[in-house]
Amino acid sequence: MPAEKPSIKSFPIASRLRDGRALALDVWSVFNATNLPSDCINLGQGYMNFAPPPWAREAAEQALRSVEGNHYSPPKGRLRLRKALKEFYSPQFGRELDPESEIVVTSGANEGQYAAWTAFLEQGDEVIIFEPFFDQYLPSIVFNGGKPVYVPLHPSTEGTPGAEFGKKTWNIDFDELKRAITPRTKMIVLNTPHNPVGKVFTRDELERVAQLAETHDLIVMSDEVYESLVFDGREHVRFATLPGMWERTITVGSAGKLFAATGWRVGWLIGPPALMGPTSAATTRIVFCTNSPMQEAVAAGFEQARERGFFETQLREYVERRAVLVDAFERLGLEYAWPEGSYFILLNISRVRWPEDYTFPATLDGRGRDFKAAWFIANEVGVSSIPVSEFYCEEHVSIGENYARFAFCKDLDTLRRAAERLQRLRDFLV
Amino acid sequence: MPAEKPSIKSFPIASRLRDGRALALDVWSVFNATNLPSDCINLGQGYMNFAPPPWAREAAEQALRSVEGNHYSPPKGRLRLRKALKEFYSPQFGRELDPESEIVVTSGANEGQYAAWTAFLEQGDEVIIFEPFFDQYLPSIVFNGGKPVYVPLHPSTEGTPGAEFGKKTWNIDFDELKRAITPRTKMIVLNTPHNPVGKVFTRDELERVAQLAETHDLIVMSDEVYESLVFDGREHVRFATLPGMWERTITVGSAGKLFAATGWRVGWLIGPPALMGPTSAATTRIVFCTNSPMQEAVAAGFEQARERGFFETQLREYVERRAVLVDAFERLGLEYAWPEGSYFILLNISRVRWPEDYTFPATLDGRGRDFKAAWFIANEVGVSSIPVSEFYCEEHVSIGENYARFAFCKDLDTLRRAAERLQRLRDFLV
Repeated sequence: MPAEKPSIKSFPIASRLRDGRALALDVWSVFNATNLPSDCINLGQGYMNFAPPPWAREAAEQALRSVEGNHYSPPKGRLRLRKALKEFYSPQFGRELDPESEIVVTSGANEGQYAAWTAFLEQGDEVIIFEPFFDQYLPSIVFNGGKPVYVPLHPSTEGTPGAEFGKKTWNIDFDELKRAITPRTKMIVLNTPHNPVGKVFTRDELERVAQLAETHDLIVMSDEVYESLVFDGREHVRFATLPGMWERTITVGSAGKLFAATGWRVGWLIGPPALMGPTSAATTRIVFCTNSPMQEAVAAGFEQARERGFFETQLREYVERRAVLVDAFERLGLEYAWPEGSYFILLNISRVRWPEDYTFPATLDGRGRDFKAAWFIANEVGVSSIPVSEFYCEEHVSIGENYARFAFCKDLDTLRRAAERLQRLRDFLV
Repeated sequence: MPAEKPSIKSFPIASRLRDGRALALDVWSVFNATNLPSDCINLGQGYMNFAPPPWAREAAEQALRSVEGNHYSPPKGRLRLRKALKEFYSPQFGRELDPESEIVVTSGANEGQYAAWTAFLEQGDEVIIFEPFFDQYLPSIVFNGGKPVYVPLHPSTEGTPGAEFGKKTWNIDFDELKRAITPRTKMIVLNTPHNPVGKVFTRDELERVAQLAETHDLIVMSDEVYESLVFDGREHVRFATLPGMWERTITVGSAGKLFAATGWRVGWLIGPPALMGPTSAATTRIVFCTNSPMQEAVAAGFEQARERGFFETQLREYVERRAVLVDAFERLGLEYAWPEGSYFILLNISRVRWPEDYTFPATLDGRGRDFKAAWFIANEVGVSSIPVSEFYCEEHVSIGENYARFAFCKDLDTLRRAAERLQRLRDFLV
């Protein structure tokens, strides 16, 4: 009988991740409010400090007062919700969506994407993701046997229409993208509007991606969870609507983002039956089904949104919110990525300097410079953000460590207080 | 440019499953209420036709009316719930549980088990499961690269204390279990009380399993989701409380089962930090976090259950419910497995005969005889059940096809009507 029991102490998660970050303290834990000063204004994690609409929540309360609304939903989602999704999205996709075979409700967009990777990735399949990427992509792909292949977006110095100053936009280098495609490439992950860059990809850019998807027979996962937050009259182009792309695209949506309800854990996938069938089989095994009361709330949300002008009002509110932070950064004279969509602003923090004898906690050891900058800003200025190197693979950390991500999914008063505090940064700029 | 696009049409889920059943129409879909006569009494799927306690639901409503209760929870669970779990379970485990490192909240017990397999299985690792097994185990293990190894429970003719007739109990053949263990065995899955057999494993049986776990250095996943439904004064032995077993056991719990709330999708895992750490990292990537309002409801459930005598009352109600079905089977003179725990009864349907010219739908082609028997009973007698061959691997289907599973998690009136209808089976017995 062995005295040592190595099998229990060893776990394959770490070894499956190339850069071993899955078990390092994740950025959300390092910059968790409990680790920061109690009066720090939280512009870090992307959740709202306001509630979802009451008329949607009421449907959850009704479900809770019923019998059936407290029990299992069908694994692919409640029919009421799938019908509401069909009504909402069919015009946007330019086709009559079939709620039986083309829409799958998932336990948040996150679990939906995970399920799609479970369904389609075989050991060693390559998945192209653009950097900076939503940090969950990396481990989710790796846990399912896939190999992430990173293609960085590059900041340009070109001015952006709608921006009064020379803010940078971030672009794909299409030669670089082509070079990243190999015979093992199975999927490409798009995210428009983009977290954390705030970019809304143009029709031209997406068409060039589509051409590559066609040529190399790729599945495209189009993460469009910020679809309702596209500013300045820009066009949100649904990748699945490009010629030939419906058959190869999984479009990802999120009630958390659309209805300010990140804790409801309701998302959905839309795509052709050949892509939805296996994904539905995977989500059925992973979670069996999604919680019932919140599916009712989301269904009610979609049913009433148009009549109430909900998304239009919400968009106007986000434009106001964005203006507060943008103005703060302009006043500081710092470079930032103009948010064409989503509720994030990337701020270039390479000019921030802290005293040489400033002490940082051990959790920041070995992390990018941005971890220190964000920590310093949170502690000395009182506004928390998220360091962006977490959204880069190990070898590209040096690009990410010039940026911190600030979320503007907060009420105006909070943002205004944050904007005032941020002016204190002036004393720490070089 | 290829005219055929085989990569999109091929998906690895089917190839990963040895017996290819993941994409066959699952038993729950075949026996879905929509496919059965509209007045059929549903004793198939294991969900209640009554609501969870209102005093628990109210906490969800309160959360819905707050801001924070609609947003992300910490990935390992809301502190209120983890504290309530600690209070409830610490005495039962005979140790002070640490809510930070020894309890992880998951999106249903199902997702918790999936996450544990994601955390610990490496390609080719073997996992022992007893047949008949909860049908989600098989694909969940396979999707995570594991290889299920099946050890059947054997019906015995021995009488059981508490049963007045010669009902069969189902037992482990320990020689068979030993033979199933190889150097690649990493885990063994226990389920007590057992679905679908209704068996509560004895301390002696569990100690013999513990000895094997110790000798062969195995992780034990102890699925105890029916923990509150242990009848006739039997003892529910928590596997983790056996000598030496805490360090190697992941105990699985479910709010759906405890609080009659299968649609809330809240479960939890309890175990030592070395097992909870990687599992927590996995669940964080799979679902990020579990829905917030229902976590509040479950926390309130635990906080108030003792004072209200909730579990004691619920147990008495289930004893009454069990009696109705047991009596119906006794009157028919059919053999069944005495439910020592859980809310299922296995009925031996090998004596059921249908007319030779009876027509069955194509979805039953190639399935076990039990699929036909259960279909016939649902359509001609008006009571649905679940065929048990679905809970066996392909090669052992012949054992399972003698049984159908009836759930008694329904109100007394429904069960009494079902019991009356079931007497019509008399005309179809040989």
